[in-house]
Amino acid sequence: MQQVNIRFTSSGYVVRIGSNLLPRVGQETRAIARSPRAAVITDAGVAAHYLDPLLASLRGAGLQAEAAVVPAGEASKSLTQAGELYDRLLRARLDRGSVVVALGGGVVTDLAGFVAATYMRGIAWVAVSTTLLGQVDASVGGKTAVDHPRCKNLIGAFHQPSLVLADVSTLATLPDEEFRTGLAEVVKHAVIRDAQLFGLLETRPDPILGRDPDALEDVVARNVKIKADVIMADPHESGLRRILNYGHTVGHALESAAIEGSGKLGGAPVTHGRAVALGMMAEARIALARGLIGSAPVERQRQVLKRFGLPVQLEASVDLERCLALMQHDKKALAGRLRFVLPEAIGAVRDVDDVAEDEIRQALLSLTSD
Amino acid sequence: MQQVNIRFTSSGYVVRIGSNLLPRVGQETRAIARSPRAAVITDAGVAAHYLDPLLASLRGAGLQAEAAVVPAGEASKSLTQAGELYDRLLRARLDRGSVVVALGGGVVTDLAGFVAATYMRGIAWVAVSTTLLGQVDASVGGKTAVDHPRCKNLIGAFHQPSLVLADVSTLATLPDEEFRTGLAEVVKHAVIRDAQLFGLLETRPDPILGRDPDALEDVVARNVKIKADVIMADPHESGLRRILNYGHTVGHALESAAIEGSGKLGGAPVTHGRAVALGMMAEARIALARGLIGSAPVERQRQVLKRFGLPVQLEASVDLERCLALMQHDKKALAGRLRFVLPEAIGAVRDVDDVAEDEIRQALLSLTSD
Repeated sequence: MQQVNIRFTSSGYVVRIGSNLLPRVGQETRAIARSPRAAVITDAGVAAHYLDPLLASLRGAGLQAEAAVVPAGEASKSLTQAGELYDRLLRARLDRGSVVVALGGGVVTDLAGFVAATYMRGIAWVAVSTTLLGQVDASVGGKTAVDHPRCKNLIGAFHQPSLVLADVSTLATLPDEEFRTGLAEVVKHAVIRDAQLFGLLETRPDPILGRDPDALEDVVARNVKIKADVIMADPHESGLRRILNYGHTVGHALESAAIEGSGKLGGAPVTHGRAVALGMMAEARIALARGLIGSAPVERQRQVLKRFGLPVQLEASVDLERCLALMQHDKKALAGRLRFVLPEAIGAVRDVDDVAEDEIRQALLSLTSD
Repeated sequence: MQQVNIRFTSSGYVVRIGSNLLPRVGQETRAIARSPRAAVITDAGVAAHYLDPLLASLRGAGLQAEAAVVPAGEASKSLTQAGELYDRLLRARLDRGSVVVALGGGVVTDLAGFVAATYMRGIAWVAVSTTLLGQVDASVGGKTAVDHPRCKNLIGAFHQPSLVLADVSTLATLPDEEFRTGLAEVVKHAVIRDAQLFGLLETRPDPILGRDPDALEDVVARNVKIKADVIMADPHESGLRRILNYGHTVGHALESAAIEGSGKLGGAPVTHGRAVALGMMAEARIALARGLIGSAPVERQRQVLKRFGLPVQLEASVDLERCLALMQHDKKALAGRLRFVLPEAIGAVRDVDDVAEDEIRQALLSLTSD
């Protein structure tokens, strides 16, 4: 028998955060492109506000830019929609040197990034992120995906964008509830990794809530740095990156259980941000009950979440046993132990895999009686 | 405005070439897996010969292995078939630590590699290659893909396998015409990069044609080394890797024109190998007419192709104008100049982009009057 060894090397990109970045997308994209054709993938909601200026910027830079507008909402993250987009890119004659520009929130960047990852075995893409959640989370890390009917994000690829633009000006038109969903991830980043950011959220929430551009630029940049540190240490999600799941083990199950039930969570319609806020509270209570963390930092987390309009109290109508069953199902489906990221202090977490079902139940119950 | 820079590092894998490697697939796969579940993706033709021993090897190594058998043939390289396979993997509860084992030729490794590249954003895969073309070409390089209805290999990803096993014993059951298709790529590798291999093909063709296991191991290993050198220097096909297209610029167009026409090429039903052999002859004649290469090496290439049962003469029934139009269409569709890899000697090629249509026409015409 004979054998041949095969080895490879590396890559990188830049995330820019600021106000009024849309007009420079054309020049930046032109610098990345190795062919004159580009395609913008966006959704109908975002297109109404930002598609025309973006196309003008691309065309002004000498690119032949066409737009593909998908319906707004998670349903567009499908293999069928991806199939239609391949067809659009082929008709627009995009080649290997062309660039896909994703304009929108996480649904659009996940979908467009996946299409860019798999069109002609991967072409360059630029993420122009227009939601707070996208700017602090979805657009950084190179995770792209579409959903399988029975499993969110099942079909995807790691495909780093060539450039990420987080234009905080676009947050001005973001609905309040979507803004809050982004804030839940901001609080998460602070708790897992950055006591100084947490202090800022605690002491100066008003400019953030008032969407002051300078305050948003500062907050988004700090969050991108936290996420960048974590993903650079663990680009393929095999270790450290797991800390980004803080609040999400319980949060995902709460989200599903509430959607199956009353459709409400913390007294309002379910959103990912509301579920994550309650997930963080539940996971902090598990840590508290174990003596991993004191009651003061847990209370500080609670106050910040409340200040940002996020729920910290769970209504009795949410079926906790169903929520526990969903977590167990995830565990069985994935042939592993259920892992939790638990806080030890503001700015520090620990990865544990021995949390008993009853500890989770008690933590959830404690949130219903607050 | 603020910015954050993001950077990453590297990876690698091994290709093993030898006889009777199937029984060791289980142990090798177990060593790669981080979970007890694995799935074999194969086609009905290959399954009849090799699926049972492969499953026995995987199960003997303690893996819970299930098989997904797709119909044999290029039609299985579709997004629809990929969609069905995601569903199979999810039902078999494959997780991020699981391994996909592709058992078959290029269609199977392209499809299974693409599914592995995109299931849960990429899980490990092992390529067990059972055709000569697969062993010397498709399974090395990490190119995975499915076809778009209007464009072969449009949808794909670069996803390196964790291990490639080229078991030359499986070539014993390969139909002659498929064996010849692999030989066309072997001759191509020799002409572009390895005069010593070319000398071996010229002076000792009988053990290869007789499928002597030692001769095949030697030939496959030499070809894997050539391809590995090229792809390591250019993993994402941005430069050197283009030399692997020798014979393919004309070959692809001839293949399509002949399929649209009589279905024959060089006096027998069209295969990729027959098209590539004629493509190499046409491209060598372009080089000869330009004075890039002498007539002696072109004649040596012709004799080796003939000895291996590959065509070197083109029937008048192939529509040469249609063939030229197909090449022009590719050029226009991809917004680039038509590039040719032309031989300068046995073992050395040059990349050129100024070949005029009439040079191609004359080269093709010369093959009809041989």
